Amino acid sequence: MILNLCMGGEFDFIRGLREKRRRRATPAGLALGIGDDAAVIRSSQARDTVVTTDLLVEDVDFVRAASPPALLGHKSLAVSLSDIAAMGARPRWALISLGVPRAVWRTNFVDQFYEGFFGLADRYGVALIGGDVSGTPDRIVIDSIVLGETPRGGAIRRSGSKPGEYIYVTGALGGAAAGLKIILEKGGLRKRSSARMARGLKLRQLRPEPRVDWGLLLGEQRLATSMIDISDGLSSDLGHLCRESRIGGLIQGTSVPVDSRVTEFYRDTTVDPLSLALSGGEDFELLFTVRKRNMPRLPTEVNGVTITKIGETTAETEGIRITYGKRVKKLAAWGFDHFKDR
Amino acid sequence: MILNLCMGGEFDFIRGLREKRRRRATPAGLALGIGDDAAVIRSSQARDTVVTTDLLVEDVDFVRAASPPALLGHKSLAVSLSDIAAMGARPRWALISLGVPRAVWRTNFVDQFYEGFFGLADRYGVALIGGDVSGTPDRIVIDSIVLGETPRGGAIRRSGSKPGEYIYVTGALGGAAAGLKIILEKGGLRKRSSARMARGLKLRQLRPEPRVDWGLLLGEQRLATSMIDISDGLSSDLGHLCRESRIGGLIQGTSVPVDSRVTEFYRDTTVDPLSLALSGGEDFELLFTVRKRNMPRLPTEVNGVTITKIGETTAETEGIRITYGKRVKKLAAWGFDHFKDR
Repeated sequence: MILNLCMGGEFDFIRGLREKRRRRATPAGLALGIGDDAAVIRSSQARDTVVTTDLLVEDVDFVRAASPPALLGHKSLAVSLSDIAAMGARPRWALISLGVPRAVWRTNFVDQFYEGFFGLADRYGVALIGGDVSGTPDRIVIDSIVLGETPRGGAIRRSGSKPGEYIYVTGALGGAAAGLKIILEKGGLRKRSSARMARGLKLRQLRPEPRVDWGLLLGEQRLATSMIDISDGLSSDLGHLCRESRIGGLIQGTSVPVDSRVTEFYRDTTVDPLSLALSGGEDFELLFTVRKRNMPRLPTEVNGVTITKIGETTAETEGIRITYGKRVKKLAAWGFDHFKDR
Repeated sequence: MILNLCMGGEFDFIRGLREKRRRRATPAGLALGIGDDAAVIRSSQARDTVVTTDLLVEDVDFVRAASPPALLGHKSLAVSLSDIAAMGARPRWALISLGVPRAVWRTNFVDQFYEGFFGLADRYGVALIGGDVSGTPDRIVIDSIVLGETPRGGAIRRSGSKPGEYIYVTGALGGAAAGLKIILEKGGLRKRSSARMARGLKLRQLRPEPRVDWGLLLGEQRLATSMIDISDGLSSDLGHLCRESRIGGLIQGTSVPVDSRVTEFYRDTTVDPLSLALSGGEDFELLFTVRKRNMPRLPTEVNGVTITKIGETTAETEGIRITYGKRVKKLAAWGFDHFKDR
């Protein structure tokens, strides 16, 4: 969804769109518009429908040579399932718009793409109900659309948190960014034992696992007050969540769950695993806030995926900060933006 | 939606997808899957939601130099509204995934694109509720998603017709194909008086008018037994409708409403206006079938758009035919297919 990619240029763009929308009469049946992981529409007295779309463009979002078609099919669906999970919703239906060059069409690309897509879709009972196909001059482009459902008013928004709540994250961070780094640097392994680790990290990038079950649990039991998926990077996405909730946040640097393979892989190098965990994107973990009194109701894990308390929400005026030992620093958002040079 | 572009290569692809889906358990809440203008999901006891997606790729679906951004914004929404209209549904919500090169992002392209988009959206009370933005290496790509609503079970499918019904089409045909021809041939006007006509025809290509009001009327009053929008061309789309309804069709060649500007513009040339009307695509008129006894209930026009009876449905074994004076010919489907050489 739109705000996942937003900072600077894109963020201004979204603000512009929101402004445009505000100047129009809010249509009946619309519960929530632009600016969350997914849009929410009121489809009946009992339920809301959430809908998200994610555009993946070759040489921007993926490199064809490094992305086997089945993994690309998986990832295309995964990024949208992650948006649905971040709304605390149950994914139900998917559509795929697929643009492929003629030469690719003649290969088994499309078959394998759908093998990967259905492998993930079937796991969560998501039905492919439509889509579009088009030729393209040279690059593959994929638009993934997923619709989900929540009980009426049950969607978890980015804007629902208040100061004095705990901040949690599912799983471990930095793996997808490390995987991308390894893919772009094409190997460069220093020792044989790294090969397996490198493969695991590359799969974190190429085959992300959306936290559908966690999202559902947090939504259904109304445990999360706000939620977002980590697609741009923890620092960026925390920024989005805090901005929408009009709060600040204090993160304990030592609590951030860095993927152990990242720490291991980059031991004795200048690469800082915590930096990758904070600013590398595409981990597709969930970042969410919980009222302190609800902490005991949180399970320790769901289907093998753990959660970690990484900090607390604060007043907006305190900004977003991170502790390193005794030092406290402002946490800058380094996430990914398509249109802003850093 | 997916079948709009389907013949040969793409059509085989859709059949493959359908087959894949059939082998899976039909999920609860799914009323109708792949293979119509839009997918239908049962969202409540009272209503169904229809959803469609259309991918537009630069240099395949449009030429940037010939497509002012506002017209592109209009057309992106129009093609999806046309799909919703073809289901007899009321359009409600839209999402847009927009991929643009950095250089284009820096211009007023996006602003103007949305001006055109909102111009059409507001006319039909459609709310933009989300989307995605991405950079692309060099070409613009747009995926347009529209959701609409019908009373439960009220969607008009391609498959609902039987032999012995009348076949109707809204508006006039061939204008969009003539417009494309003029754009691609860059002028070549033989006389001054043609300039205005050429502009009108180009606008039929660049600024199609979806027949939303007709679609709604035919759906709400249950007048159409089957319906499709003419995006590939009358002959192709009639083929899709007949295939889904398992019927044949007999078209009166002299009844096909050819855009009068096409006839005028190509007078004394070798270009055959009827050919453009039959096989040129993107007119985005509605093609539908009506039981003979319901004919008197049809209005003659809706908001200035007329309809024309062009033939009758027949048994499937009779195939799809067209009369030219006393001759009867098989009507071949010449429509647009991205992946089939003709």
